[in-house]
Amino acid sequence: MTTQALVEQIRRKKSFLCIGLDVDLNKIPKHLLETEDPIFEFNKAIIDATHHLAVGYKPNTAFYEAYGIKGWKSLEKTINYLNANYPEIFTIADAKRGDIGNTSTMYAKAFFEDLKFDSVTVAPYMGKDSIEPFLAFKNKHTILLALTSNQGAFDFQTKDIEGKKLYEQVLELSKSYQNSENLMYVVGATKAEYLSDIRKIIPHSFLLVPGVGAQGGNLKDVCKYGLNDQVGLLINSSRGIIYASDAIDFAEAAADKALELQKEMSQILS
Amino acid sequence: MTTQALVEQIRRKKSFLCIGLDVDLNKIPKHLLETEDPIFEFNKAIIDATHHLAVGYKPNTAFYEAYGIKGWKSLEKTINYLNANYPEIFTIADAKRGDIGNTSTMYAKAFFEDLKFDSVTVAPYMGKDSIEPFLAFKNKHTILLALTSNQGAFDFQTKDIEGKKLYEQVLELSKSYQNSENLMYVVGATKAEYLSDIRKIIPHSFLLVPGVGAQGGNLKDVCKYGLNDQVGLLINSSRGIIYASDAIDFAEAAADKALELQKEMSQILS
Repeated sequence: MTTQALVEQIRRKKSFLCIGLDVDLNKIPKHLLETEDPIFEFNKAIIDATHHLAVGYKPNTAFYEAYGIKGWKSLEKTINYLNANYPEIFTIADAKRGDIGNTSTMYAKAFFEDLKFDSVTVAPYMGKDSIEPFLAFKNKHTILLALTSNQGAFDFQTKDIEGKKLYEQVLELSKSYQNSENLMYVVGATKAEYLSDIRKIIPHSFLLVPGVGAQGGNLKDVCKYGLNDQVGLLINSSRGIIYASDAIDFAEAAADKALELQKEMSQILS
Repeated sequence: MTTQALVEQIRRKKSFLCIGLDVDLNKIPKHLLETEDPIFEFNKAIIDATHHLAVGYKPNTAFYEAYGIKGWKSLEKTINYLNANYPEIFTIADAKRGDIGNTSTMYAKAFFEDLKFDSVTVAPYMGKDSIEPFLAFKNKHTILLALTSNQGAFDFQTKDIEGKKLYEQVLELSKSYQNSENLMYVVGATKAEYLSDIRKIIPHSFLLVPGVGAQGGNLKDVCKYGLNDQVGLLINSSRGIIYASDAIDFAEAAADKALELQKEMSQILS
């Protein structure tokens, strides 16, 4: 998907909401456990109920890998369902991969070619040659971890490294990568006060912002400093939406939560 | 597996060789492509021919994920084959994972409980709360990226951050993590000159050392600075061993290459 198509979808839906599909069998409604593929059935119901309110879905690969081959099948069915039924949706494999060059190419093939995601999250620790293989795929997006939503972000990311913070160095350096136009960045909603500095370095890029909801991030703060003229934000909420209820009406309850956020977004955009 | 059992295996086999199973269908012998699961058949033959010369095997998950469910099945069959037939072998999922706490727990379950690997490689960018969930698993080992073998290691890892290099900070901080005795570290063979400084910070830990062979690292240099009184090294070679030949005798050719390295190691240990 092109960035332009993503922006058009955002304008049309008046939403820059992304829904995280972090599906834990211990948390989904009990009646789904009797189906052949509870994870996929859960995702399908959530997607059908919320697709008009969200522009993206972000399965977190850990939650599928934890169930082995069965989990990987659920992931494949989920992305295939999205691509077949809602082709306008921006899909994110939240996988946080990254390795030496020939290995990163294999990861890129896994998520861009085999599973046909629009984007994948990637960790920057191993530097340029671990990231550029992802960027080589046309109309695919590589979402680089910059400043994450967790407490551990302060261990290294915000530390000074040659006069700048590590996450700033990550942002700066990434701008010189080949095909850097295919980059987006992860910036946690719990670190909204950093966003104005971040926008000075990457004014035009899209940011994927996790941490609104369960992790305590605030939508208004994020938008105040993070919005740009192409919107430039994808706000992710996972647990706050998908686990709104564990009763038979869980999908409607999720839609209600998504609608709350979409309404806030619609106001902010107008 | 306990560290003690690993050390005993090393002493018994006079080897600290780990063989990387980075299986690319474009590089394996053509006759295997006619089998139902070429990747597993390749791995099985390599393992059967080299298990007496190596103490560990390290499938790189990217090379399995790139083939989707079929690839994940090959990975599962490979680890099951190792655990069933060569239980003394130390198994490494080279997956380079790492995410917020509840997600890292899911990754740990995927590799330690579902696939039953002895260890997994983890990236440190997201800090303490992304790593400790892995460390909570008893007799399982978390191999933290410190100084990697690629050129991109110089982008961030070797930069000064508050008076120390980033990889040194990663090493230092990790020592304070809960269950830090379950930590090992990745240090690239191509950066052997850094090893004496690294040993000052973590004298007793095991290091997984990729980069000997195809990437240009030198075994003698690594041992000179990296060995400790428990040996403390796992030297990985992937392409240099497994792709020694693409003819019908590929497994014997791999064993010949492994034997060369094992002989060198035997000399170094005596």
